[in-house]
Amino acid sequence: MSQVYFESVSIIGVGLLGASLGLALKHKGLTRHIVGVGRRVESLEIALDHGAVDRITLSLEQGVTEADFVVLATPAGQVRILLEMVLKSAKRNPIIIDLASTKRAICEHARHMCPLPRRFIGCHPMAGGELSGPEHGRADLFANTVCLVEHDDTIDPHARAYVCALWERIGAVVRDMNPETHDAILAGTSHAPHVIAAILALVAAERGANAFMIGNGFRDATRIAASRPELWRDICLENSQAIATVLAAIRERIEVFETLLRHADGQAIERFFIQGAEARRKVLDS
Amino acid sequence: MSQVYFESVSIIGVGLLGASLGLALKHKGLTRHIVGVGRRVESLEIALDHGAVDRITLSLEQGVTEADFVVLATPAGQVRILLEMVLKSAKRNPIIIDLASTKRAICEHARHMCPLPRRFIGCHPMAGGELSGPEHGRADLFANTVCLVEHDDTIDPHARAYVCALWERIGAVVRDMNPETHDAILAGTSHAPHVIAAILALVAAERGANAFMIGNGFRDATRIAASRPELWRDICLENSQAIATVLAAIRERIEVFETLLRHADGQAIERFFIQGAEARRKVLDS
Repeated sequence: MSQVYFESVSIIGVGLLGASLGLALKHKGLTRHIVGVGRRVESLEIALDHGAVDRITLSLEQGVTEADFVVLATPAGQVRILLEMVLKSAKRNPIIIDLASTKRAICEHARHMCPLPRRFIGCHPMAGGELSGPEHGRADLFANTVCLVEHDDTIDPHARAYVCALWERIGAVVRDMNPETHDAILAGTSHAPHVIAAILALVAAERGANAFMIGNGFRDATRIAASRPELWRDICLENSQAIATVLAAIRERIEVFETLLRHADGQAIERFFIQGAEARRKVLDS
Repeated sequence: MSQVYFESVSIIGVGLLGASLGLALKHKGLTRHIVGVGRRVESLEIALDHGAVDRITLSLEQGVTEADFVVLATPAGQVRILLEMVLKSAKRNPIIIDLASTKRAICEHARHMCPLPRRFIGCHPMAGGELSGPEHGRADLFANTVCLVEHDDTIDPHARAYVCALWERIGAVVRDMNPETHDAILAGTSHAPHVIAAILALVAAERGANAFMIGNGFRDATRIAASRPELWRDICLENSQAIATVLAAIRERIEVFETLLRHADGQAIERFFIQGAEARRKVLDS
């Protein structure tokens, strides 16, 4: 594993992921200094108090001037414009990554925006959870998780190797990722399921369900409905086509199942549940 | 709380719920003797080895003759026919309960079948999980859970009070339940979500998702897709109409959301996620 060390890191957006990456970099001694950049002083001060960053600023320009590594850790919808601002303000040709859950539109934009070979590399760490905000940041948030790292021949291979080594140093397993495939698959494994979880909660509530009528099944199936609305708005806007395709596929399968119910087709219903359980196992075990 | 004691209990079906109820009754000293009745010697022997029952038999007739309390702990589809057999074979006018997740068809059948005031009382303990089989039975499975107990003026009030006291003695909180309302609500909180979880798994698998492309969200949202297919076949057949109604409502909401995506309506999408999170909180906190 190559040596990783950054003189000066800028983390733009100090939510759960940004703060955790700051803590992880410091915990592993991978940088001398971290600047936290954000729009809200309150969040920045929490990140500073928790030791996730060493200095804070509301000014992106000032925050990235000296950086040799910039992390865009904002919701997906802000990444493209912030990338442009970083490219304008940074003086030291830094390596730049983002951490958003959608990748196609962001990486496509970077392909057009960045000088070649490009030193922006799209990343998607498969970490996080229900909690948000810098106060929940943890140095080990990425340990034993997967980080998907964009692979593309416009990327500076040295910068990419450096980024991969960084993720490995803080405990993540790196997998190559193509942004288009990423968004098509994540629409099925994450984005559309978030929409469905919200719908399940809405439908249960409108039927007058209460805490006595639910079990762990409902709690589990709808847990992701508690995620941050503005994050998921951005994800839906960034990956709208792939999500719509998956939602249409879900709708069609529901319609088929309704037909099985109407025909009281016990054999086909049992087969459906067997196939569902097998599909889940296949995805988890592959 | 009234005293609860049964001379001779018969538990028909010694899966997770049946075995756990046997263990709980013994643990609390609520019976002298338990007979386990089943179709598979292997399961019965496991239940016997675990001390969930004192005697086992493949013959329902012999198993219930002397019972003053009979528990129907089979999948929903078998409850009605087994209830008829119990009513024919039992000599001591026992109190009878079932534990199935659907109630309308079963309780309606009981209203027609049982001599009045009826001593069959539909129950739905909101306990269980991914594990199944008598080997996972636990005396405390029902502790700190809710048990929904049928309420209806054809039921013998003394028998009902006895059953409620039993559930309370083994740690459950009892709530009155109307079978029709129960099935309409549970279709939304449990039955349709099981169908949807299987569909999410199927759609993700057909898109080539693998373990590197999923997070805890997918794991949680599809956990119930790992449940026992034959149980869920029965539940779907027993409650097909209410489930179809909920599935149609889900389909319609998906279609509305697809329109929001097509129009890239960020405000409405964010509002949708806010409402979904609120709906979940409302259901869990009510």
